[in-house]
Amino acid sequence: MNYGIVLRVLGKLLTIESLLMIPSFFISLYKGGPDIGAFIITIIITATLGVLLSRIKSEYNSISPKEGLAIVGLGWVLASLLGAIPLYLTKSTNTYIDAFFEIVSGFTTTGASVITDVESLPMGILFWRSFTHWIGGMGILVFTVALLPALGIGGFQIFKAESPGPIAGKMAPRIKDTAKILYTTYFGITLIQVILLLFGGMGLFESLLHTFGTVGTGGFGIKNNSIAFYDSTYIHMIIGIFMTLSGINFSLYYSLYKGRFKEVFYNEELRLYIGIILLAVICISLNLYFTSYEKLGFAARDSFFQVSSIITTTGYSTVDFDLWPSFSKAILLLLMFIGGSAGSTAGGIKIIRILVMFKLIKREIVKIFHPRAVLPIKNDGKTMSNEVVAGIYSFIALYVVIFMIGTLLVTLEGVDLESAASSVVATLSNIGPGLGFVGPTRSFVGYSQATKLLLSFFMLLGRLELFTIIALLAPKNWRREL
Amino acid sequence: MNYGIVLRVLGKLLTIESLLMIPSFFISLYKGGPDIGAFIITIIITATLGVLLSRIKSEYNSISPKEGLAIVGLGWVLASLLGAIPLYLTKSTNTYIDAFFEIVSGFTTTGASVITDVESLPMGILFWRSFTHWIGGMGILVFTVALLPALGIGGFQIFKAESPGPIAGKMAPRIKDTAKILYTTYFGITLIQVILLLFGGMGLFESLLHTFGTVGTGGFGIKNNSIAFYDSTYIHMIIGIFMTLSGINFSLYYSLYKGRFKEVFYNEELRLYIGIILLAVICISLNLYFTSYEKLGFAARDSFFQVSSIITTTGYSTVDFDLWPSFSKAILLLLMFIGGSAGSTAGGIKIIRILVMFKLIKREIVKIFHPRAVLPIKNDGKTMSNEVVAGIYSFIALYVVIFMIGTLLVTLEGVDLESAASSVVATLSNIGPGLGFVGPTRSFVGYSQATKLLLSFFMLLGRLELFTIIALLAPKNWRREL
Repeated sequence: MNYGIVLRVLGKLLTIESLLMIPSFFISLYKGGPDIGAFIITIIITATLGVLLSRIKSEYNSISPKEGLAIVGLGWVLASLLGAIPLYLTKSTNTYIDAFFEIVSGFTTTGASVITDVESLPMGILFWRSFTHWIGGMGILVFTVALLPALGIGGFQIFKAESPGPIAGKMAPRIKDTAKILYTTYFGITLIQVILLLFGGMGLFESLLHTFGTVGTGGFGIKNNSIAFYDSTYIHMIIGIFMTLSGINFSLYYSLYKGRFKEVFYNEELRLYIGIILLAVICISLNLYFTSYEKLGFAARDSFFQVSSIITTTGYSTVDFDLWPSFSKAILLLLMFIGGSAGSTAGGIKIIRILVMFKLIKREIVKIFHPRAVLPIKNDGKTMSNEVVAGIYSFIALYVVIFMIGTLLVTLEGVDLESAASSVVATLSNIGPGLGFVGPTRSFVGYSQATKLLLSFFMLLGRLELFTIIALLAPKNWRREL
Repeated sequence: MNYGIVLRVLGKLLTIESLLMIPSFFISLYKGGPDIGAFIITIIITATLGVLLSRIKSEYNSISPKEGLAIVGLGWVLASLLGAIPLYLTKSTNTYIDAFFEIVSGFTTTGASVITDVESLPMGILFWRSFTHWIGGMGILVFTVALLPALGIGGFQIFKAESPGPIAGKMAPRIKDTAKILYTTYFGITLIQVILLLFGGMGLFESLLHTFGTVGTGGFGIKNNSIAFYDSTYIHMIIGIFMTLSGINFSLYYSLYKGRFKEVFYNEELRLYIGIILLAVICISLNLYFTSYEKLGFAARDSFFQVSSIITTTGYSTVDFDLWPSFSKAILLLLMFIGGSAGSTAGGIKIIRILVMFKLIKREIVKIFHPRAVLPIKNDGKTMSNEVVAGIYSFIALYVVIFMIGTLLVTLEGVDLESAASSVVATLSNIGPGLGFVGPTRSFVGYSQATKLLLSFFMLLGRLELFTIIALLAPKNWRREL
């Protein structure tokens, strides 16, 4: 591990973070809230630490996968450790660990909260909290679509294989090009949603914050009952649709922009994504209609919002889906595992991996009767290498293993299995609310500090595609060497 | 599909079944129970159908994988359809579908019951019910250890790869040899357990029936509260140990017999199996000790029995583990998925597949930093082919997919998620009792007829290693051809 370069890049990251805190500071200044001091202190600490670290010298400057992963993993943790300070100083959370949980949840675009009364928070804090979603969403796009493939790291070729257009390259200029396209798309979607929410009569502040939560697929709200506060089908639909849009591989927007409509139309991951959403909405709508709703239309509206929110791992809610019948809840729980598309801001196992898993099962069935047939796994017409396929099923297996161990550990809190399991999947898939004890009307505040740290770890684990963090934990990767 | 040969073999199977009903008939005759007539009628129907089918001529006599799988799949269903008649005629169950569920549960060595008051059943019926476990256990041993590898069917090479000794061959004499060894081992274990239970003061009838339930890893009891009826640590321990023994690959007993101790000692699947049991017992014992038990020894005794019962997919109980704390319940639920060793009478995903899954995950972590390394997956020092590995992860994936779809369907009954999920895993892994609505003190009688058929299907699906049944459902395999 070349510590010099790692620390220097982390320094740059913190310097950027201190700059990103300035808008929140201005809002607290403008509103005259109690959080002005907290932001001043945090900005000074973060900037100082950032500048100091940036000055560290290293013998050479190349970044190997080892250093790349260390930067990403430590970067997310360090940014959260410092980003949590304003919440702690303003007593927005009970403890510093709670504040850390909240900001990890922000940066990882999870949206799991330990704050029960968000409406009482100062405006600057509210802004910072939602803004971390937006920053995190951007970060994860660059990480998964540009950085990981460029580092050529095993197990992540999925993104390389998946990204049409300008993304497959390995050199720095290519990363920059890709990142630029992503920035533009991300900004564009953000702008459009803000405008559409303003049309719906929502104030600028609220429109902005809800948009941060949507395009980052985060889910931090600014009302105690999330989006249910807004009694407007228009607002529900706009947020519902933009959540779905944020769960699509962003490189497909670039294809659209370049006029490659066929590529988008025939994209297998997109088709499965839309298919799953439609099927889930139909099943839940009918289930709700036959149990509690009087009008099928309202059942469909609410189920679309919730399905879109859960599959994209956003976590906004317009109803308390924890009160829905078991069948609908089971579908949502299933969607929590699946997650959105690769190369989007969504978390979870990801549609492309689910797609490949089904192809692997299908191949095995064919093979029973044709034991000698050679049947490569294809995606969008291209054969996937064995390496990529191995990366995919190992990912799913690791996901399930972590989910199971995590659930076991959370049951030690004494909560029921459904609550424990959904707490883990809600954090590991970066969703936010789960079921039961951590249902949409509750929060994670009831857990012990140890469990909150564990769940913070799961948020990072899920966000950074599991293997990144697991690899970082292997001690032999921390040896000092040239 | 060569229908002639399929029907002829099925005919032989039914003839054998009619013979296997004779002991139950004699017991009912001896006890003068109300079930004498039911057995006479069923034996006549089964024998007649058997002889008629056996006379069907076919143009040629070779059995391809297609026919082999059809025989196994249809055989299990047909045997259950006829085996259910005595239960229906004696009104031991409410409906014929209930009787079918019960006997499918018997032959698949599941042990899930729809009978709430077993103690009121006639002796002949009780014997037949437990005897189906013993027959089923034998059937599955021959099927997975001898037949499947001999047919050379893709996705099942796991058993071939796993079975040391005389099992790898492809020719009929080899199957017969293997089957003979299996019979002997199975009989031997049965005999020893019966004797040991007799030593414990249990009557011959009860010892025999509990042994059938144990070595077949079935779990049908003859008391309403299963093994809890016997207030004897000795009996609990004997049954607990023999359940564990029945979950071990039977070919290892042959290795022991041949004096190949090293082979057994270093067997990776066995080591993991024992390791998981020890770990689970320790965790649950401590959890019970710190919550409800006064003595650690009793906590250890009860947790060993339950862990052994669940991991071997037997399903006996000495306590109502549905009342245990969430952590212990979560461990049991996890063990329900894992199951016993390949080549045993146990169900579930199987230890060897779990082992390979962990090896795949480990390989992927190593690959992050050594992207170009070629790392074959090995088991007991031998490299597993990509085919075998693909068969294994596809199996696990299919298992999880079926589990999820099944859980969704069962939630339509209106039960909670935990009950629905455990109903599916309890049948799919051939365990028997689950949690909540289908906990150890309850039964499956509360479900609708449709759900009972679905769960019967899952029992068959799990028992016949998923792909067998899935392949049978593909219509193109039913075309008539030469």
